[in-house]
Amino acid sequence: METRFILLVWVVPGVAATLVSARADDARILQTARAVFGRVPAQAEEIPNNPTSKDKVALGKMLFFDPRLSKGGTLSCNSCHNLAMGGDDNLPTSVGHGWQKGPRNAPTVLNAVFNVAQFWDGRAEDLKTQAKGPVQAGVEMASTPERVESVLKSIPEYAERFGRAFPGEDSPVTFDNMARAIESFEATLITPDAPFDRYLGGDEAALDANQKAGLRLFVTKGCIACHSGVNIGGRSYHPFGVLKKPTADILPAGDTGRFALTNTEADHYVFRAAPLRNVALTAPYFHSGQIWTLEEAVKIMSDSQLGGVLDENEVAQVAAFLRSLTGKLPEVTLPELPAETAETPRPQP
Amino acid sequence: METRFILLVWVVPGVAATLVSARADDARILQTARAVFGRVPAQAEEIPNNPTSKDKVALGKMLFFDPRLSKGGTLSCNSCHNLAMGGDDNLPTSVGHGWQKGPRNAPTVLNAVFNVAQFWDGRAEDLKTQAKGPVQAGVEMASTPERVESVLKSIPEYAERFGRAFPGEDSPVTFDNMARAIESFEATLITPDAPFDRYLGGDEAALDANQKAGLRLFVTKGCIACHSGVNIGGRSYHPFGVLKKPTADILPAGDTGRFALTNTEADHYVFRAAPLRNVALTAPYFHSGQIWTLEEAVKIMSDSQLGGVLDENEVAQVAAFLRSLTGKLPEVTLPELPAETAETPRPQP
Repeated sequence: METRFILLVWVVPGVAATLVSARADDARILQTARAVFGRVPAQAEEIPNNPTSKDKVALGKMLFFDPRLSKGGTLSCNSCHNLAMGGDDNLPTSVGHGWQKGPRNAPTVLNAVFNVAQFWDGRAEDLKTQAKGPVQAGVEMASTPERVESVLKSIPEYAERFGRAFPGEDSPVTFDNMARAIESFEATLITPDAPFDRYLGGDEAALDANQKAGLRLFVTKGCIACHSGVNIGGRSYHPFGVLKKPTADILPAGDTGRFALTNTEADHYVFRAAPLRNVALTAPYFHSGQIWTLEEAVKIMSDSQLGGVLDENEVAQVAAFLRSLTGKLPEVTLPELPAETAETPRPQP
Repeated sequence: METRFILLVWVVPGVAATLVSARADDARILQTARAVFGRVPAQAEEIPNNPTSKDKVALGKMLFFDPRLSKGGTLSCNSCHNLAMGGDDNLPTSVGHGWQKGPRNAPTVLNAVFNVAQFWDGRAEDLKTQAKGPVQAGVEMASTPERVESVLKSIPEYAERFGRAFPGEDSPVTFDNMARAIESFEATLITPDAPFDRYLGGDEAALDANQKAGLRLFVTKGCIACHSGVNIGGRSYHPFGVLKKPTADILPAGDTGRFALTNTEADHYVFRAAPLRNVALTAPYFHSGQIWTLEEAVKIMSDSQLGGVLDENEVAQVAAFLRSLTGKLPEVTLPELPAETAETPRPQP
């Protein structure tokens, strides 16, 4: 008993000192985190040049769920950006018209409004530009603006709803307005109140010790060089494989990233830093979608971007931190889509 | 003036007599309708051998929306029984794994609990038996019971939810219990309060004159011989083309209906009478799904089953009546599906 008591007396001050210094360290990290990241707001801000309204959001939700925007009548925005599954499809790459495989992993639509631009290479400046892409892509929904407009004009309830969503326009049922309505809906798809948001807000108990250690590593080891802002990423472009090229399954040679857009040597294999909000819900990871666990993904990032700065335990801690980025998912009630009419172009599966 | 007044005096009693007789006639039809049909209840009754619970319904909803029940990870029950589109997919026949076309039009899941049996040929005695079909069908979700169980067991939240939905069972995560949970959810997908239900309940203004005329024709011309009960169909089997064989696109020779099940001569081209609840939302029509308007469908029924008893105006009236069968759709909030784990079998698109 006596020996144990002496030991305790000897140990306790050390532990206390460590605790004090850990708390001071936590506070410094929190201060940095507050400067570098941002909390997901309760409501998304207004989108420039696309004022929102209840009618527009309601219409956008209908369009988001309507498979008749696709040529085959089978695929909607929600097919690949499934709001029941973290806003993506949990596939390496999506399956489109005719069972074709898409070229890159479908990013989540949740909090996408906070990204600097859309798609892995940022080729769409905003969500309304993005929304027009998959509808027309031959390997995705395979439709055309003309077909979409014919479909929507043939359904009286859509014509009426476009009129209310775009008041004062002579001919509101347009492909552009389809995209604007979808953007308005998507801007509502944000996930506030993640444990990490509560931590940023001052709730020290919102992260456990492992997650705090992971945040510390995330801040001090260089992850924040690319993953910052409200979305912990999604706002800048960086080459994948700075220090070590990942294997070809993860970074296929044929997909050169932004180089295909800019034809600039420096843009070889450059991608938009992945936004990490709700990343625990959006496996598989990277644009190639070959990696299924957060631990593997963190290890690959550590090796390829930072020269292997994380050991196995630290990888697990960063993964634990990333799990604190899962927010409160929006409650989405299915829309009631109006029936097609005799004039509606028929699906061509 | 005088002439018109006289004319009026002469006409009014006739109109009044007609009105009185029309009202008496309406009352007789209503009496018959109440005997032959049934109102959709506010809540579905208990299902034999599958007691419901909140936990079971909630689990069933998750499973209904989970594409990981399919081999490719792309198709869920809701893909073909889309609750945003009247509970079906508005396609001639569904598109399944590998973009294969299904053999028959997908029936609506709405009010399916009131059918005597499931599928066009009634080969599944109830919804839990039905639910196992598409999950395993090679041209649909293309999975196996073993794969489904592996997927569900690999996701801790599912394991926990099966435990709560099937309390007291040693090993609750089974393919059978998947089907039972889906059945419990599907039993909630009913659509009360259609104009026709209000009419049956005594609200004479719930149907307009055209719809009442359509109901009268529906009752007096023989439609009710097959289309009766709560679902206005769905409870008995009849040959398609009794009096005149429809064209081969509508009744393909290769699909012999219940004959394939029973191998009985009398079952050649026998199908379950289509349940007509919400039929305005579920084009295209018939098991072959080639007919897109109610008017065409009614005309074909009149010709093939009743020897052409309806003229063009009457066809329109019956179609108007059928539009009064659209009820209040269930409000469905998307579930939050739990993320897969390192152990989850990967999609094989």
